[in-house]
Order: sequence, then structure tokens, then C-alpha cells
Amino acid sequence: MFFEGSEKKIKVVVGENTPCLRSLGRSFWEKIVIQSEASILSVVQNEVCDAYLLSESSLFVWKNRFVMLTCGNTILVDALLYFLDQFDNIDLQSVCYQRKNEYQPELQKSSFVEDVERLNARLPGKSFRLGTLDSHHQYLYHLDRPYRLQPEDETFELLMYHIDESVAAAFSQPNQTSKEIRKMLDVDRLFRGFEFDDFVFEPCGYSFNAIKGDRYATLHITPEAAHSYVSFETNLDSEQAMRMLSHFREQLKPSSWDVVALGILPEVPMPSQTLQLSESSLSLSCGFDVRFSHYQAQERKVMQATPLHSEPQTTELHGA
Amino acid sequence: MFFEGSEKKIKVVVGENTPCLRSLGRSFWEKIVIQSEASILSVVQNEVCDAYLLSESSLFVWKNRFVMLTCGNTILVDALLYFLDQFDNIDLQSVCYQRKNEYQPELQKSSFVEDVERLNARLPGKSFRLGTLDSHHQYLYHLDRPYRLQPEDETFELLMYHIDESVAAAFSQPNQTSKEIRKMLDVDRLFRGFEFDDFVFEPCGYSFNAIKGDRYATLHITPEAAHSYVSFETNLDSEQAMRMLSHFREQLKPSSWDVVALGILPEVPMPSQTLQLSESSLSLSCGFDVRFSHYQAQERKVMQATPLHSEPQTTELHGA
Repeated sequence: MFFEGSEKKIKVVVGENTPCLRSLGRSFWEKIVIQSEASILSVVQNEVCDAYLLSESSLFVWKNRFVMLTCGNTILVDALLYFLDQFDNIDLQSVCYQRKNEYQPELQKSSFVEDVERLNARLPGKSFRLGTLDSHHQYLYHLDRPYRLQPEDETFELLMYHIDESVAAAFSQPNQTSKEIRKMLDVDRLFRGFEFDDFVFEPCGYSFNAIKGDRYATLHITPEAAHSYVSFETNLDSEQAMRMLSHFREQLKPSSWDVVALGILPEVPMPSQTLQLSESSLSLSCGFDVRFSHYQAQERKVMQATPLHSEPQTTELHGA
Repeated sequence: MFFEGSEKKIKVVVGENTPCLRSLGRSFWEKIVIQSEASILSVVQNEVCDAYLLSESSLFVWKNRFVMLTCGNTILVDALLYFLDQFDNIDLQSVCYQRKNEYQPELQKSSFVEDVERLNARLPGKSFRLGTLDSHHQYLYHLDRPYRLQPEDETFELLMYHIDESVAAAFSQPNQTSKEIRKMLDVDRLFRGFEFDDFVFEPCGYSFNAIKGDRYATLHITPEAAHSYVSFETNLDSEQAMRMLSHFREQLKPSSWDVVALGILPEVPMPSQTLQLSESSLSLSCGFDVRFSHYQAQERKVMQATPLHSEPQTTELHGA
């Protein structure tokens, strides 16, 4: 049973002529989420933000913006198009749609290029790939309209592949509690003072959302051994963000990882015995910068071959 | 315009109760090749082998065996199933079907898993993945029947990704002649005494076949800058094979490359400033070994983002 951990992500900022997005209420956002073929599990709130945990990742809603991430086999672009359909005259300031490289893109219901065709039929946009096709890469589409980035728009993503096997095994134990996982990750300490929400999936997997003022952090773990994947994303200021990136990378010890920075592009601290394989950055015509960096631990991974024949073979040899 | 350079490959060995495969003639093999949606361009022969250059890669036919490689968007498994259909009672000794990881698997007409479902409906087989899903890997299916490997079964494949940019640019020049490309690759010297056949594709791309007795070598170049790919494969003895692998790797300077060895698994000479990222080997139940190794040049690749919007955007912003 394969589960695609890698996410698609949309971020939308609307202007002052659009109703407060939070005031649309949970039922409105439930319909948006359902369009992507995910569902809402729970919500925490503070004075400016509603943070929803989803069956596949997360949704954060502020007065004039929302960020939605979905993994698995969801069709996030359907959620965005449905959102646009709910307004006669929406004042869009910024739209950004990203897709991380998937472990198994051939199992997805749509390709990035197909998604972009549908978006382009509605919005004038530009799209790019950062990174190489045969290794980690990132697809990005943005509304081609000038936008002045706010401090809370600046986000950092840490995408971790093939985490340490013993850590992955610990996350894959049956009947884990969120308390045990929070302890392993040391997140209670890390997110003191945040509104915090988390969920342990069956048979495995873990998600959390954390919010404080207009800042958020979210982590999603797909621990399955052959294709483990953990994503962490935050719009905390770059100093705090870099500290958290280092924290999770040290705890999870991935074989390879990517950092995606939107907005300011700080130096990413690099542990020893690490090779940065690629870096691709871009000044978008809408007015902000994006950088994708792909890192690799300098280690030789001796691996078992993965059997793909789960059933005993009973077929007789043709003609033999 | 994207062209998938990475190949699918089948190798079939038949027993003595099957007619001589060469005697079936070009018209027979033309029909097999057409099933995969490729076509025959030319043929060279020696006393034991017919070597066909295809519109997408190569086909080698001996008395009791054939090896067929196809790249692009071909469906090689159709060719294999059609081949089986041509015999009432075929004495199959060995069947091996491989698929290299594709640059864009979502553009392929079938996935490896789908191919294997069709094969398993006809032949009792086992299938595996060697290497990691998010990086280079190799899929392999084999007939689950004991087979004693012959010296001429032992093959080495060198799969090179992102070759040196100036070399790729040289191969992408318009109106190149095969003579110029042979000179660049120094293949006239390397394959002295071989029957040799090659083809220069429009707008770019190059293939050669070389045969000598029951041994073959074949090279296929897809030089397009963003996803250049070159494969070299041979069943020459391991000493000669390793010398040729080193030769092509030194000339083409790929950023990353894989070596696949079927049969004996010699030490692969590794240049300095190289990291072996993964190794996956397997003793197949049919009686021979396979090893997949993935190598990476220790260099930081600073890349341009690849624009995916080829058309000027004329769509008006919805509702704005």
C-alpha cells in the first residue's frame, strides 16, 4: 500500500474588496477541502487565524489569505478553482500553486502541466520547474500580477526524504499516541505559547499545526520505510525558521532533503558530510524570489531490492 | 518538446525446440517492433547476429535469443506479448523485462506495475525495484524459472544523466553527420573490427549498434539540455566493458549515472569526486544476480529555473 507523502500547495491573498475569509466559516472551507478530495479533521484558532488539520495535510485561513497543503492523491487545483467560483468578482492579489516532485507521479490524478492548463484558462499565470527532472524538483505557478510580499508571506519549507530507519520505525509503531510522538520530536518545548493541534493516522502517519499571531508551522510525517517523507513548513521569521529546520533535520536524519524559500533567501545551515547537489532560484515577475535547494547526505546507501510481487504466482507458463 | 530518453528493455532466450529466431526474417521482426510503436531504420549482420537500429533504440537477434530496447513513449511489453502470440508452444528459457526510471513517468502510456500485470497473466514472474523511488531506480521483471546464465548473457549498462553542457550542445548542433559524432566519441577506434551501424536523428539524437561474434554494444544519446540522457550497454566481457564504461563516462561527463550489471558484478571504477549514493543487488530466484548502482558527481549544480509557459499569456483575469 503506497501513500504519496509529497504535497501540493496553494496560497491565495485577496484584496480589501473581498469578504473576510475567516468569516466564511467552517462549512465554507469544508466544501473547499472536499473539492480536493480531503476532509477536515479538527481546527484550532487564535485571534487572526483558523488552522485546520486535514485528512491529507493542512489549511490555514486568515482574514485576507489562505494556505492549503494536500498530499496523497488529492487534486488541490480543484479546490482553488472551486474557491474562485464562489465569488462574482474576486480581488486577487496573489496566487501561488506549488507541487513537489512525487515519489510516483504516474499514480497522481493529474500532472502539474494539466493543473496549469486549467489555471491558465482562468488566471494569467506563469509556471516553472526548479531542480532537475530525474531528482528532486519543485513546480511553481504564480499569478502574473505585481504583488508586494508581506513579512508573513515569507515561507520556508523543509522536505525530508528517507528519514533515519530507526526513527521511521518508531513512528510506524501501532497504537502510538500523539503525546509520545510530540515527545520524540520535542515539539512541546519548540512550540510553547503556540496554539497546537495534531493527529496520529492509522496505520501510521502524523500531522501537526501550530499557530501564534499570524505565524504558522506545520509538519507531516509519512514514515513508510521504502518511501518515508516528512515536510515541515513555516512562515516564522527566518532566524526562528532556520533553527526549526535544523532541529527537525537533526532529529529525523533524512538521506536527502530540499529547502524551498519564498521571499527572503537566508543562508541555510548545512551539516557536515552534506553535499548540496542543486540550487535553482528565480525572481518571479510578480515581485518576489523563490529558491529551491536540494541536499544529499554523503553516505552510500546499500539497499534491499523492493519486491513488487505481493501475491504468490499461480499462473501457468503459456504454452510450456 | 520533451523526449524521454530512458529505455525499457526485454531479453528473451528460447530453447532448442523453437525455430531459429534469425530465420524468422526482417518482416517478422518489423511486426514485433511495430507493436511497441517503433520502427526499423537499418540492419547490420554478422555470422550469428542481426542488429537492428530502431526509431527508438535497438534490437539484437541471435539464433536463440533477442534483446530489444526502446525509449520514448513506446510500449515494449506489447512487443513481447505479440512475440509470444506468434508461437503455439514456445520453449522459454529466460525472460527479463527492465524499465529505467523515466524523467517523466506520468507521460508514459503504461506504468511498470501495469506492464507486469499483463506479463503475469501469461508468464509466472517476479518483479522488483532496485534503487530509491525519489531518485534513480530500475524496475526488473523476470520469468520465475531456473536458467543457467551464459557468458554472452552478462550485460553492463551505463545510464548517464545531465552530460556536460558543452558536449550536449555539440551533439545538438543542426546538420551533424554521423562521422563527426563518431569522431567526438572516438568510436571508430573503440569498435575496430566490429560491424557498426549508426543514425543521426532530427532535430537531434544519435544511436549506434556494434556487433562482433555474439557480442554487442549499443549507445543512445538524447542531448536535450534540460534532460540529457545517454545509455550505453554491452555484453562484452567485463574487462572490456569496464574500459568502455570509463571511456564514455569520461567523454560525456554526466552529473549522475547508474550502472546496471546482470550476471557477474565486477568492481566499477569510480572517478575521484564521485559519491556512490546507492547500491542495490539481488540474487534472482531464476539463478543470476543483478546489481544497480547510482553515482553522483560531487558538484553543486546552480541551475536556471525552467519556464513551462511557452505561450504568451493572453487570458484575462477572471472577474478582475
